[in-house]
Amino acid sequence: MNKVKLGIIGFGAQGGAYAGFIAEGRVKNMEIGAICDIDPAKKEEAAEKYPDTPFYEDYIEMMESGAVDAVVTTVPHYLHPEMGIEALKRDIHPLVEKPAGVYTKQVKELNHYAAEKPNLTYAIVFNQRTNELYRKVKSIIDNDEIGDIRRTNWIITTWWRPQGYYDQSEWRATWEGEGGGVLVNQAPHQLDLLQWIAGMPESVYSKVKYGYQRDIAVEDEVTTLLDYGNGATGVFVTCTHDIIGTDRLEILGDKGKIVVDDSKTLTVKRLKKPEPEMNKSMNMEDVAKIFMGESTEDIYETEVEEFESVWGGQHVAVLENFAANILDGVPLIAPGSDGIQGVALANAIHLSSWLGKEVELPVDEEQYLAELNERIAEEKQ
Amino acid sequence: MNKVKLGIIGFGAQGGAYAGFIAEGRVKNMEIGAICDIDPAKKEEAAEKYPDTPFYEDYIEMMESGAVDAVVTTVPHYLHPEMGIEALKRDIHPLVEKPAGVYTKQVKELNHYAAEKPNLTYAIVFNQRTNELYRKVKSIIDNDEIGDIRRTNWIITTWWRPQGYYDQSEWRATWEGEGGGVLVNQAPHQLDLLQWIAGMPESVYSKVKYGYQRDIAVEDEVTTLLDYGNGATGVFVTCTHDIIGTDRLEILGDKGKIVVDDSKTLTVKRLKKPEPEMNKSMNMEDVAKIFMGESTEDIYETEVEEFESVWGGQHVAVLENFAANILDGVPLIAPGSDGIQGVALANAIHLSSWLGKEVELPVDEEQYLAELNERIAEEKQ
Repeated sequence: MNKVKLGIIGFGAQGGAYAGFIAEGRVKNMEIGAICDIDPAKKEEAAEKYPDTPFYEDYIEMMESGAVDAVVTTVPHYLHPEMGIEALKRDIHPLVEKPAGVYTKQVKELNHYAAEKPNLTYAIVFNQRTNELYRKVKSIIDNDEIGDIRRTNWIITTWWRPQGYYDQSEWRATWEGEGGGVLVNQAPHQLDLLQWIAGMPESVYSKVKYGYQRDIAVEDEVTTLLDYGNGATGVFVTCTHDIIGTDRLEILGDKGKIVVDDSKTLTVKRLKKPEPEMNKSMNMEDVAKIFMGESTEDIYETEVEEFESVWGGQHVAVLENFAANILDGVPLIAPGSDGIQGVALANAIHLSSWLGKEVELPVDEEQYLAELNERIAEEKQ
Repeated sequence: MNKVKLGIIGFGAQGGAYAGFIAEGRVKNMEIGAICDIDPAKKEEAAEKYPDTPFYEDYIEMMESGAVDAVVTTVPHYLHPEMGIEALKRDIHPLVEKPAGVYTKQVKELNHYAAEKPNLTYAIVFNQRTNELYRKVKSIIDNDEIGDIRRTNWIITTWWRPQGYYDQSEWRATWEGEGGGVLVNQAPHQLDLLQWIAGMPESVYSKVKYGYQRDIAVEDEVTTLLDYGNGATGVFVTCTHDIIGTDRLEILGDKGKIVVDDSKTLTVKRLKKPEPEMNKSMNMEDVAKIFMGESTEDIYETEVEEFESVWGGQHVAVLENFAANILDGVPLIAPGSDGIQGVALANAIHLSSWLGKEVELPVDEEQYLAELNERIAEEKQ
């Protein structure tokens, strides 16, 4: 086997894009093994575009057909864990879409199955982890270049969605269909990047707006205060109603500061001496100089780097890395088991807003599920 | 009377600077009437620099001497209200330093006295209100140019102070001496600007760090989530341990967005149509274009303006405006009664962190005072 035969479950926008990337030869170690969708219209579309590719309406049948070595789950969020589990049971490598699931209880079950099949490749589509900019940010933190983190702050409101987006399907932006709004659908990328780079908080307090600027049941705006438990704090803001869109990540460490603007411009300021040392040695005259706006070059060095990202390139990289792990054991960019972190964060943010108080992580899974089910029951009325 | 005779209470760094501005003729409608300080060393200093100016050790005596028409209170925060009241009682115009006081109960008393003497000029040194940049931001909001506010976000961590600053005096950074840290000493400027521009929140939740990076009893870091009660939210972050210092204010409205960087660069993005209209009329294709980074000029116009501020100029402007109100009834930039807002905000932020929950404004004054007194008692042990 020199190419992984991928089964694409769900032939919608995302699954269709993946099929395209592979068919165009952009994923050099992968081929389309089969396509699966429950929608008859998709069957016709697949037959037209990929006449030689087997099509299934039942994903279990596809998994058992021998046509695929691996699957990707471009289906509603709730289904990712169960499809992942069914794949693992049949020794099929699962690549799950983000988020790994809607609530940690189901994702934990998937992780549990995966842990019992360590020879299989279990990955998640956190394509942003392939972004060179964020890889560099992570390496700066991991290499202790800006020291211990004191504060993180991400305003990520570039996820503008009009009402028409939400009205596309009945299941969109409902508790039953998606299990949440911006936290579950758009922001999982940043929730993952944030925890990947800066670690998981120990507790969160959130103010979440449900149907604030859109006629939806779920959240279209989130403001969260993170407490990392070691003194460090953070702020995470996201929404789908800001058409001007801000994307600004700031991380303060005791040896420097990172600012990322628009996921394009990386500014790193490295202190000449750690802040605790400056704190001990500097006097009020030095403070006055800073206050009067005198040169800062004695204090820190500034490095600015611009990055470009090609649309689709990240997803191609994830698919290729997934196949490379299956074929050659190349380390995964995003192991599937990492997916639970973003889900745990989203669950905690929801729960904090529902309870109106700070919650510790991990949250009580049963409590979260009970609260979620209450909302599902309410929206049916 | 064509010049107001100012009595300077407290001849420290601030009071000394004011005396300098007036002596240099920078405040054209003001002269130094008298100087007051309880410190004998200051008496000598004043005698040397201003030999012809009467000096008092007792501010009441100065007020009753006939040498001053007005006073400014450059003294520890706790004393501002009582000195303001004593001035009003004697028909002396009070200009109080910020913050107006440490807790709202005492500031309310001052406001009450002032309300009974409407013919006197009662002002507060919110010098940042004279900053042309923030005046423009306020006018943009007041003129509804960016519509209804949906979110505010201010990271203002340019207040770096080393341990040596806190160790200057026994009273610094203690509950008894100052009644707080960065919220009471450095950030009152921004707390006032924020409420002046965007209004007061209805409730706050905060995470406040006491003695986090400095050996002090009071707070050196604050993260606050604001709820304006009408759907709008906000975030306010400040600290004294970030030597690189961020100063970034963002205000999102339903017709545009304002971003202020470093209190110098104002970026205003004005939507061609209000966001609610775009929400109704735009489809997924339009969203895709935005997502792919296509031109935004159909969506909004961007205006960038740079501002410069001269150090000291703001304080001169406040002094001059105060005198102009006394002499000619020119409207005040910062009426004294406005001072209570920033104090109310700071009190609420403290109280939320002490109680570990969201608190509504105005907070229970007695509860705040009891909690504050508990901390004063604790630090004495």
